[in-house]
Amino acid sequence: MNFELTKEFLDELRGAIKLGNQSFIQEKISTLHPADLAEILDQLDSEESIQFYQFLDKEIAGDVLVEMEEDVREKFLTQFTSKEIAQDFIENMESDDAADIISELPDSVKDEVISHIEDAEQASDIVDLLNYDEDTAGGLMAKELIAVNINWSVQKCIKEVRKQAEEIEDVYTTYVIDDRGKLLGLLSLKKLLLTPEEAKVSGIYKKDIVFVEASTSSEEVSNIMEKYDLVVVPVVDKLGRLLGRITIDDVVDVIKEEAEKDFQLASGISEKVEHSDSVWILSRSRLPWLLIGLLGGILGSRIIGNYESEIQIYPEMALFIPLIAAMGGNAGVQSSAIVVQGLANNSLGFTGILPKLFKELLVGLVNGIVCSTIIFTYNFFLNDSFQLGLTVGIALISVIVFATILGTFVPLVLDKYDINPALATGPFITTMNDVSGLFIYFLAGHLLYIPH
Amino acid sequence: MNFELTKEFLDELRGAIKLGNQSFIQEKISTLHPADLAEILDQLDSEESIQFYQFLDKEIAGDVLVEMEEDVREKFLTQFTSKEIAQDFIENMESDDAADIISELPDSVKDEVISHIEDAEQASDIVDLLNYDEDTAGGLMAKELIAVNINWSVQKCIKEVRKQAEEIEDVYTTYVIDDRGKLLGLLSLKKLLLTPEEAKVSGIYKKDIVFVEASTSSEEVSNIMEKYDLVVVPVVDKLGRLLGRITIDDVVDVIKEEAEKDFQLASGISEKVEHSDSVWILSRSRLPWLLIGLLGGILGSRIIGNYESEIQIYPEMALFIPLIAAMGGNAGVQSSAIVVQGLANNSLGFTGILPKLFKELLVGLVNGIVCSTIIFTYNFFLNDSFQLGLTVGIALISVIVFATILGTFVPLVLDKYDINPALATGPFITTMNDVSGLFIYFLAGHLLYIPH
Repeated sequence: MNFELTKEFLDELRGAIKLGNQSFIQEKISTLHPADLAEILDQLDSEESIQFYQFLDKEIAGDVLVEMEEDVREKFLTQFTSKEIAQDFIENMESDDAADIISELPDSVKDEVISHIEDAEQASDIVDLLNYDEDTAGGLMAKELIAVNINWSVQKCIKEVRKQAEEIEDVYTTYVIDDRGKLLGLLSLKKLLLTPEEAKVSGIYKKDIVFVEASTSSEEVSNIMEKYDLVVVPVVDKLGRLLGRITIDDVVDVIKEEAEKDFQLASGISEKVEHSDSVWILSRSRLPWLLIGLLGGILGSRIIGNYESEIQIYPEMALFIPLIAAMGGNAGVQSSAIVVQGLANNSLGFTGILPKLFKELLVGLVNGIVCSTIIFTYNFFLNDSFQLGLTVGIALISVIVFATILGTFVPLVLDKYDINPALATGPFITTMNDVSGLFIYFLAGHLLYIPH
Repeated sequence: MNFELTKEFLDELRGAIKLGNQSFIQEKISTLHPADLAEILDQLDSEESIQFYQFLDKEIAGDVLVEMEEDVREKFLTQFTSKEIAQDFIENMESDDAADIISELPDSVKDEVISHIEDAEQASDIVDLLNYDEDTAGGLMAKELIAVNINWSVQKCIKEVRKQAEEIEDVYTTYVIDDRGKLLGLLSLKKLLLTPEEAKVSGIYKKDIVFVEASTSSEEVSNIMEKYDLVVVPVVDKLGRLLGRITIDDVVDVIKEEAEKDFQLASGISEKVEHSDSVWILSRSRLPWLLIGLLGGILGSRIIGNYESEIQIYPEMALFIPLIAAMGGNAGVQSSAIVVQGLANNSLGFTGILPKLFKELLVGLVNGIVCSTIIFTYNFFLNDSFQLGLTVGIALISVIVFATILGTFVPLVLDKYDINPALATGPFITTMNDVSGLFIYFLAGHLLYIPH
């Protein structure tokens, strides 16, 4: 049943939608998973999507909606009344998905949709969930879970699990709580299946389990689930009472988003964008960094400006300006990337900042010596200039070492002040290194090459 | 029980290891999860780690080993004989972890370890798994799973699940197969719990399930599990026979690694490294890109060299060399980052390459006009030069537009030829844009500024 959306499939479907060819469409989509249907809806325009929606099994409409892309979904939902949103979509959803979707709606629509939810418990769960910051465990969790009391027998548990399980889509585990609702441990379905019915929960449940508090950041939740290889993690309040649970599929999205955010920041894009966004949004997301680059370029022009008269006499100094600037930028980005990733992974270890800088100094020296030797040889043999070669070589090694150290230092400092260190890998560090590289180059030229 | 390793904890533990203070150590580590213990072992040196290992519960030694970092684990295992590796570690592991760890061992040790595994079925499973490429579904899967025959009753299933489940750590689902072992569907534990015992599997199992073939790439597996929100996915052979299953925790590692690889490639680092690697490895991983940058710088110097005599007369042309080069690099990296991410996400849609380039042309124009206006204004008012301002401004807009289009084009082409497009975000595109930027700048200078 593995489905891959192709342009041909989409064209056929569009044709059928236009003709209102119901049997063709239903045959085409009958075995598709909600995620596939969502992928199709993502590609249709508003009019097509509302027509296509008519052919969907209403049972899975909620599941399809959850899987759609956020911006497409927002536009899609404007075509429904609040009552339709509540009854066609929200009522078949788990509480976490329902809360996510309602939180995306315009404020004026939110309350209306909630007031149309008929199941009072679901409505109350959703209202609860809407209170949590979306970047916390509370914002990720669902309220649906199976809890059993520590004093129960296995028999009573199985009965209760049977009862509760009918309403919950994926049951992985049951949580064990005390009379006050405090989380004590868990009981896997496997354990329930394997234990004689007269046994007591207190004797067979697993203590010392991993949990998170509702206020834990979603990044921390993803680190914990990853570290302990968890498929689901329980969420508790400050008093340790069980509130809900987070499943790994929601956390995979967090992991992906974090990685994308870092990648974009490092590439100098300041908001989360996709190629499908408008030209205006795409331009706006890139402009801040271009302006920083521009400022760096202007600063660079002032540094070179100080040596304008010397360039007039020794124009060959100008030849290696881009080389020096580029190498500083490259070396800096490389070393900051390693630190940024180490910070994201918690793999930097417990050594202090100085040993880290010293190590990078060595790396910078190794690479600086290699590159400088090459550029000196090039200048000496091909440009026939010992002194220019020496100047460029010495400037290059200094620039690489300096950029390497700066590239390590800046993300460590940013992280200390709780700023995303991926910022440092972007044009920010490139620009700093461009400017300082020029300074070093002309200083070296002044000292070694240009007679005073 | 949530544990966070601190320097203080580690220092205390090291002291206790030195003194052989068994009761202290056992008290400290008794409630720790294997992943926590692995984190501790990652920080200890060889001698300490072997001493620390003595205090571990042998039941979980395998789980701890799996969670250790690869390079630390390799060193750690050199301290054990093949027999110890097989009997202390491998025998308590699931087949996928066992195969991963054995595949890391030196060739001479591999066969010895396998020959010491006492459970013949486990040994055969491991040998099977070692045949698959580690970047495929076969390389990720574990052989442990629960399969039931389509002709069985629920009662027989429950009995079989009870029997099989004792050997399997996490049971999420049971697979339904026919007499030839062909995968037909699945039966959740919940369904087993909720169905009367006399019902037949054939009447209640779920058909049309998502599966992968053993040869599917791990990247594809992660895309499928993410798209369909799966916790576990079955793996089949070419004939559709059930071979094993992949759980999401292994796929999370794949997702993280893919993201890290892209981030590093985009930052100009050519092999997977961490800050804890040796200076030599760190230097070597960065050198290739520095050399490409160096080559770009040399090409740049040749372009400028053509205008050396003109720079002598108009040295102010040199001032904006770094600005032009940097802006080309930045704009190119930004646009390629968006394409790279779109390719990784499958979110680029079905439009062809030309509409994409046209859109980027517009984005480049918007940002180019903004930046050029600023630099023109700066030159006109602060440097009092209309003509230099015009030259730099026109060059800048051309460079930004050119770099933006190139940044979109190159990753699309790389992807077409199955080369990782993240390469394009790195110094590669920066260097190309540096060089072409200089060319455009001096061409503009020649046409607009420098009298012929």
